[in-house]
Amino acid sequence: MKTIDVCLTPELLHLHNIENSIVVVVDIFRATSCMTTAFANGVGSIIPVATIDECVAYQQQGYLAAAERDGKTPEGFDFDNSPFSYMVDKVKDATICVTTTNGTLAITKSKSAVKVMVGSFLNLGALATYLKDQQYDVLILCAGWKGKPNLEDTLFAGALVERLKEEFMIEEDSALMALRQYQNAKDDLLSYVASSSHVRRLQRLGIQKDIAYCLQHDLYDVLPVLRGNALVNM
Amino acid sequence: MKTIDVCLTPELLHLHNIENSIVVVVDIFRATSCMTTAFANGVGSIIPVATIDECVAYQQQGYLAAAERDGKTPEGFDFDNSPFSYMVDKVKDATICVTTTNGTLAITKSKSAVKVMVGSFLNLGALATYLKDQQYDVLILCAGWKGKPNLEDTLFAGALVERLKEEFMIEEDSALMALRQYQNAKDDLLSYVASSSHVRRLQRLGIQKDIAYCLQHDLYDVLPVLRGNALVNM
Repeated sequence: MKTIDVCLTPELLHLHNIENSIVVVVDIFRATSCMTTAFANGVGSIIPVATIDECVAYQQQGYLAAAERDGKTPEGFDFDNSPFSYMVDKVKDATICVTTTNGTLAITKSKSAVKVMVGSFLNLGALATYLKDQQYDVLILCAGWKGKPNLEDTLFAGALVERLKEEFMIEEDSALMALRQYQNAKDDLLSYVASSSHVRRLQRLGIQKDIAYCLQHDLYDVLPVLRGNALVNM
Repeated sequence: MKTIDVCLTPELLHLHNIENSIVVVVDIFRATSCMTTAFANGVGSIIPVATIDECVAYQQQGYLAAAERDGKTPEGFDFDNSPFSYMVDKVKDATICVTTTNGTLAITKSKSAVKVMVGSFLNLGALATYLKDQQYDVLILCAGWKGKPNLEDTLFAGALVERLKEEFMIEEDSALMALRQYQNAKDDLLSYVASSSHVRRLQRLGIQKDIAYCLQHDLYDVLPVLRGNALVNM
């Protein structure tokens, strides 16, 4: 039987063998929710890069560019890391270069996997349906916050484990803990995450609307996957 | 206000600043439950060491010695890593040298803290009472399993956070997740842990009795603390 596992932060990724796994990277607030929304709005591809400088270099070559550090957008970029900023005509068929505090690092760290995909509550159903049909083990990689686990990514991991638990075997306690946390939270996710450290951080930035949006399930049938250095919609 | 935080595995300890914290090391199945039991039965001191070889060297010098690897006891040691093996007369005032798969490493990694203490459900109340009166932040360090988080240590962390949450501020999501996991589990801890990876591992070794014992709360008023290279009862 295929296995499903959860890695609560990229700092623990070296403990997992991902050569025969599909890695699903998640950064709910807000990198992977933005990416899902971008593809749902017709973006052609997204290039994740590690640094602000690389991102600026792409922008100078004519690409659209998005950057985030510590929940805020540095000056001069085309998107403000709110998923709503991707609901505009200019994204159609565009290539966007993106760097974020946690999410893009998680993607680049996973490159030795069979496939690297991007997950969020917004494309949970599409992702679950796709993964059920594949022959590979699944590792859900939570981007976390500066190396530490966070609540919202763990809850997403639990949601995906719940959707896949009939077809996959749960091997380790991280997956079990994420599943139970989600089962305990799912009837009112918004209240459940309200006291998390990152939500408190985001609320200080005034983006409650983003938070509610990013917790909606199954909004889009998109499957972002890493091909070479760019994410595309499968 | 003092803060309380949880580190889900020693692999993440470098992300925490412990210079002004009391670190509580926990390895419920079974290292720190054994240590608590040993002190409750009059052990004088416990020397945690990293390797089997070091442990054998101490034994050859006349110390009592306990070793565990992958849940099993190698041949030739005085205790079998069951807490019940410490309920004997010979432990009174003795010095015991101990090495285990996960617990002793977590202790030795924490040496730069203000104090390193040992926690288990068995001495939860004594520990909580002591920590409330101190001026330091608290970090609960889960020993986990070979670098990965585990369910039972996380549940203990949640239990201690619950006892301390009026006096300490919860800063990060790991503490919040541990707290909620415990609150969800506490009415029937034994069933809740039954599906964990380590309990399945232990059940194959036939030690259900140890598991039930290690989940009992507030059995002993002991406070094991690291002094130099040895744990003593405060």
